[in-house]
Amino acid sequence: MDVTLRIERALENAISAGESPSAPSGLAAAMRYAVFPAGHRIRPRIALGVAAACRDDTPALSDAAAAAIELLHCASLVHDDLPAFDGASTRRGKPSVHRAFGEPLAVLAGDALIVLAFETLARAGGDRPDRLAPLILAVGRAVGVPYGICAGQAWECESSVDLSAYQRAKTGALFAGAAAAGAIAAGYTPSQWRLFGERLGEAYQVADDICDLVADPEDIGKPVGQDAINARPNAARTLGIEGAKKWLAELMSAAAETIPPCPGRDALQAMVRAEGRKILPKSVVERAA
Amino acid sequence: MDVTLRIERALENAISAGESPSAPSGLAAAMRYAVFPAGHRIRPRIALGVAAACRDDTPALSDAAAAAIELLHCASLVHDDLPAFDGASTRRGKPSVHRAFGEPLAVLAGDALIVLAFETLARAGGDRPDRLAPLILAVGRAVGVPYGICAGQAWECESSVDLSAYQRAKTGALFAGAAAAGAIAAGYTPSQWRLFGERLGEAYQVADDICDLVADPEDIGKPVGQDAINARPNAARTLGIEGAKKWLAELMSAAAETIPPCPGRDALQAMVRAEGRKILPKSVVERAA
Repeated sequence: MDVTLRIERALENAISAGESPSAPSGLAAAMRYAVFPAGHRIRPRIALGVAAACRDDTPALSDAAAAAIELLHCASLVHDDLPAFDGASTRRGKPSVHRAFGEPLAVLAGDALIVLAFETLARAGGDRPDRLAPLILAVGRAVGVPYGICAGQAWECESSVDLSAYQRAKTGALFAGAAAAGAIAAGYTPSQWRLFGERLGEAYQVADDICDLVADPEDIGKPVGQDAINARPNAARTLGIEGAKKWLAELMSAAAETIPPCPGRDALQAMVRAEGRKILPKSVVERAA
Repeated sequence: MDVTLRIERALENAISAGESPSAPSGLAAAMRYAVFPAGHRIRPRIALGVAAACRDDTPALSDAAAAAIELLHCASLVHDDLPAFDGASTRRGKPSVHRAFGEPLAVLAGDALIVLAFETLARAGGDRPDRLAPLILAVGRAVGVPYGICAGQAWECESSVDLSAYQRAKTGALFAGAAAAGAIAAGYTPSQWRLFGERLGEAYQVADDICDLVADPEDIGKPVGQDAINARPNAARTLGIEGAKKWLAELMSAAAETIPPCPGRDALQAMVRAEGRKILPKSVVERAA
């Protein structure tokens, strides 16, 4: 089955499992709104790409891993957009969750999406109980403390910031977790896959930095110039657009080289190289030329 | 080992697992502050009480279940106290987390505690993989959607509220989850234990309602009169103090009767009856006399 279809179906299954006519409808609507329609789904695509390279012998489990990773990514966006953090009014081309549903439902939607992610893993993990604990630990490590997304976001509250730890935790960790989860779901050990995910994460961060500097907000569905406003580090501001584009290409190529031995190594390398060619929106490539 | 000691040690182990000198210190401090010093620890005591009644053959797993339940309870308190919800300034006799650490760290501490709860289960569940998936599903059901704490809190955002669904989700679900988790950790099926937990939860809710009406805020470590301020249902306002006390006694007795067949049924019944005699703080009993 097509990867996009697999991801959307897995997310639909996860979200429906949390819905009921006798539950409060506002929260269910806010959760659905946070997850659909699709964003780029980069992280679940990485999870499924790694699982496929590792022969994907239990697709129900890799689907669940991909969905869990994306649910957690969506949860982090909902909470990041809250007035206490970025106070972003738009996301994926529409009002952010707290703008559309109010702050209480935005807090709760984020919380409930986190819980749903772990339930999704447990539901699929019953048939492969030996893989469930490592899967949950890989996913938890990517989003919690001390080194996951929550820690990354919390660096913004510190008076002195370890920049590299900040970026590794805020974006790298979930990419590493996506790659690790894909490997574990397919019965492989995750350790070597984490670096692959981290490199990809760095590359996507640089692409994001370039977009934040030169993209049209309409094109990317969110406001630009946010890094300058929030005094966040931005590779394109530091290295210049050309320097950042070169750095991005090097990171994608390094990611492809990092792929550990596995049955589908060649195909995954080709996928990463193809991804590298379209990682920046066309309009951004033109503007940045 | 003493139950209180087991719970505090399990929570300490869970919290330390999320700490590192190279992680942001503010978030770690906020999480620790949200969990220690001990509140009543009612829910983890129920989990361990049920596990003991079921022979508790894997104490490391029941400890983890108890800790996970309490971490989730603490997470829900941190988020409930946020300005977007109750805006409570004190909790457990000290400033609430958002008052002490600011709103961003309060949001993140809640998020990270949720993640930590599932990691805690996975860490202990590696040795009993057959019990891990049901344990996560029982715990997830208690806190997520459609019927857990998040759903309970979300009823407060609906224009028309199903009162009984609201109370079952907001408080009953985690009590049911605590009892179910204790049973699963000890290798028992949870279904019959849920009702026991729900009844206990109703009883503690009525005790809370009485406290909200007549307690001294100093005694219970949080503001009183909140139900009237937030237009929440309160059994003591509806039934009167005497009626509520009678109802509370009936619920505790019904809970004791509900305990399903298990090796330690008599001991658990005695524990519930003893608990019933001290469920209201002494000062409240005197004031309500």
